[in-house]
Amino acid sequence: MSAPRRNRLTPEERRMQLLATGVNFLADHTLDGLTMDELARRAGVSRALAFHYFESTQGMHRAVVTMARDAMVSATAPDHDLPPRERIDDTLLRFAGFVREHRGTFSSLVRGIASGDPTVRAVVDESRELNAAHLRDAFGELGVPVTRALTISLRAWVAFAEEVLVTTATDDRADDSAIVELLSRTLDGAVEAARDSTL
Amino acid sequence: MSAPRRNRLTPEERRMQLLATGVNFLADHTLDGLTMDELARRAGVSRALAFHYFESTQGMHRAVVTMARDAMVSATAPDHDLPPRERIDDTLLRFAGFVREHRGTFSSLVRGIASGDPTVRAVVDESRELNAAHLRDAFGELGVPVTRALTISLRAWVAFAEEVLVTTATDDRADDSAIVELLSRTLDGAVEAARDSTL
Repeated sequence: MSAPRRNRLTPEERRMQLLATGVNFLADHTLDGLTMDELARRAGVSRALAFHYFESTQGMHRAVVTMARDAMVSATAPDHDLPPRERIDDTLLRFAGFVREHRGTFSSLVRGIASGDPTVRAVVDESRELNAAHLRDAFGELGVPVTRALTISLRAWVAFAEEVLVTTATDDRADDSAIVELLSRTLDGAVEAARDSTL
Repeated sequence: MSAPRRNRLTPEERRMQLLATGVNFLADHTLDGLTMDELARRAGVSRALAFHYFESTQGMHRAVVTMARDAMVSATAPDHDLPPRERIDDTLLRFAGFVREHRGTFSSLVRGIASGDPTVRAVVDESRELNAAHLRDAFGELGVPVTRALTISLRAWVAFAEEVLVTTATDDRADDSAIVELLSRTLDGAVEAARDSTL
């Protein structure tokens, strides 16, 4: 089993290569299957070298999940050149596209929040928080009062959207515009319900 | 550290005592902190005896989570003497009450799906599935077409509801009727959106 040698990588390139290998692994597996041995084998490096870069399996998991999350966050960042309503719809459409293209990784992120490690879960939680905050900003610009009920409802709606996206991503019958339509309608519903809520 | 002796319990009673101890543990902790040693210590039995009942930590986790889930499922079972609309609202209200009373356990179940063990996650997933199925039945009785879009939307709405309940359970400002109002409105919104969906 002679592994390919890539000795000319700089430390930073090597680290990125290991992280990319880990993120690719998530496309077909959950995080708990990603041992340091498995990562080293897939990247064609020694176990000792993998440990050199991440120190512990927990640290490696955190770094891999952070990279996967950051890829998602940057692919779905709101376009602030658009007015708020268009910005929301544009973001939803890019989200659906991203999930379709990276369904395994997204599913590992959402379902695989199933890490026993709270710091790994926190990494994924941050992206939920961020999505909810972007929505709050956009609806605030549209004149919706930014209340506690709105904050609760938007964060819960992000969980709704994740569930819809995970379910439909593996289903070739679903087209992105139908997904976005369902998401957009329920999002408006969640905002309307929050607006009238005494919560 | 002399533990109380309860030698007169039958094997079935002992098993229930151990399970109840485990469920109580979840009220303040996540599942990953529940080692066999911790369970034995809290129940005042030997580690060997605890292993006798559950064989492995994984088996014990599965049994404890199953018991916590079943308690929730039976406390929030739909009352089929009520017509569908009233049945839904009644279930939501009992759900909010259950979560307020057992907030720690509920939060451990929902957030603590954060078990690395897929079979433990599956136990919790089943209760989501069951809640979504009850809703599908009730809306079906109300004449809503039971489509794939409805199934997807209801299951996602259960994730929405869990998030709202986890967030508000730890918040003394929220009263149950306001929570139920928000849940009921967004549920109707999810059903309406599904009805018009081409998904």
